[in-house]
Amino acid sequence: MTAAVVALSGGIGGAKLALGLARVLDQGQLTVIVNTGDDFSHLGLAISPDLDTLVYTLAGLAHPEQGWGRRDETWTFMSALEQLGGETWFRLGDADLAMHVERTRRLAAGETLSELTDRLRRKLGIATRILPMSDDPVRTRLETDTGWLDFQDYFVRLRCAPRVRQLAYLGADTARPHPEVLTALGSRDLRAVVICPSNPFLSIEPILAIPAIRAVLAECRAPVIAVSPVIGGQAVRGPTAKIMRELELEPGAEAVTRRYADLLDVFVVDETDAATIMPAGIEVVSAPILMTSLEDRERLARVVLAAADRVAARQN
Amino acid sequence: MTAAVVALSGGIGGAKLALGLARVLDQGQLTVIVNTGDDFSHLGLAISPDLDTLVYTLAGLAHPEQGWGRRDETWTFMSALEQLGGETWFRLGDADLAMHVERTRRLAAGETLSELTDRLRRKLGIATRILPMSDDPVRTRLETDTGWLDFQDYFVRLRCAPRVRQLAYLGADTARPHPEVLTALGSRDLRAVVICPSNPFLSIEPILAIPAIRAVLAECRAPVIAVSPVIGGQAVRGPTAKIMRELELEPGAEAVTRRYADLLDVFVVDETDAATIMPAGIEVVSAPILMTSLEDRERLARVVLAAADRVAARQN
Repeated sequence: MTAAVVALSGGIGGAKLALGLARVLDQGQLTVIVNTGDDFSHLGLAISPDLDTLVYTLAGLAHPEQGWGRRDETWTFMSALEQLGGETWFRLGDADLAMHVERTRRLAAGETLSELTDRLRRKLGIATRILPMSDDPVRTRLETDTGWLDFQDYFVRLRCAPRVRQLAYLGADTARPHPEVLTALGSRDLRAVVICPSNPFLSIEPILAIPAIRAVLAECRAPVIAVSPVIGGQAVRGPTAKIMRELELEPGAEAVTRRYADLLDVFVVDETDAATIMPAGIEVVSAPILMTSLEDRERLARVVLAAADRVAARQN
Repeated sequence: MTAAVVALSGGIGGAKLALGLARVLDQGQLTVIVNTGDDFSHLGLAISPDLDTLVYTLAGLAHPEQGWGRRDETWTFMSALEQLGGETWFRLGDADLAMHVERTRRLAAGETLSELTDRLRRKLGIATRILPMSDDPVRTRLETDTGWLDFQDYFVRLRCAPRVRQLAYLGADTARPHPEVLTALGSRDLRAVVICPSNPFLSIEPILAIPAIRAVLAECRAPVIAVSPVIGGQAVRGPTAKIMRELELEPGAEAVTRRYADLLDVFVVDETDAATIMPAGIEVVSAPILMTSLEDRERLARVVLAAADRVAARQN
């Protein structure tokens, strides 16, 4: 098999599986389409948290535990900024800052987000193509019991405390996906589309909210496989389960999948969720989906690819 | 004596004497008017090297030897930027970066350079007023044997190697000094104006190139005292002597002073330059002017103030 694989990803959980896929596939076979709904401007800097998590993870630079930022980070900038009375609620490490400063500079010089992301991932020796879902801004906002909030206000400053009533992806309606996003998803050589175990509301739906992406996925010839971001009703990390309860959804694997049901061929759930009943036409595969070690990431990547290949074999 | 003292300063040499003056004067008596001709935009950040040297020096945060930047600095940002293929010829420490990011953010939010400088120096507990010479941009440029260069290109990137033919202070003609600059220099209570031992071409002349500042200085009632930035034909630091030779000036204390002669009452030279012959009406005071220790800075400040008081006593 030399055909391409496309993954849709948010930050931490998605990046883990993307790393597994990158390691079990041949070099250059993987393209990751990344959520930019979390992007924001802070301290005059253009910050793209999910793109950075992907880049750091695939370059081997990611912090091993915290789920964002870089390993071997220092915090001198943040201390000095605090001393000057600056805004410190969003933590920017000294090395991480280089990414934001360089991105901001390149955007100001007229490069697109996709161009500069491609340049930076190559510079860091990453063979996987990393594509922002769009070069047009899409901004995730949340209506909460304290009113509408920008994503980072909700997620970082308020630590996901406000109760969520609904979500909106501003700009998604009119955002144009990067041409390579459509080429990759529409390719005849596509082996699989993998929806990574990222937060469905905050990471995957912003991508699917771009009409052209959802349309090309709905017509995609290749198997579409989602990996559940919840295990036994709990998110591995982050506020997925909390948001599901607040939206009056059962915080389990099934409710998650329903959101993508029209797109899916296979849903990979944890062994503990194996009894999940899915809409007709969606195959449920159960496997250990908690990714702690590097081996876990590779193993889950192989499970996903094997499921895709079984579906493809049946369809041919 | 409770009257005010105003100092004109560039970076390192000027900041040393400013610190001496701040320590021997009562709190709040000193105002420093700082060169902004070296200011530039780099990596999208607004950088004001001389203002920062003043702020760091007066806050006790300056690097003890290198003449720029902060003590206890780390360099993680710079390493990460290099890894990303960014521009690294201008070294920005992690803590120093906080100043540039915060300044850039405040300028973008509509604060003036003088407002934000005042806010930041207060935040750092500095009692001395620090005024940029103007909120309007003035940019020092140098015509060299390789063409016209921006100041930082000449000074940092090319390490002062090109031969200087002439200097220009773009924008100085039309720059409006901050009202407090004129108020401070025109005050009846002014005890002295001190032209600090900064590079005459790169630090002092950009300030004097603003017509309103030169005019108010020419009419100033208080004694104007310059401290020589050269000792025995050599600059204590930086390219003063080299530039003087290239401009076919004798690289000594006298030629320096001639540039300000119409403004000066007193010229303080090093003991080794005591034979200096000055234009009529300018008193030459010789003293050890090399400032190595904190005591040296305070001692020189006292010499300067005593000379000013003698002139004032004679004039009254």
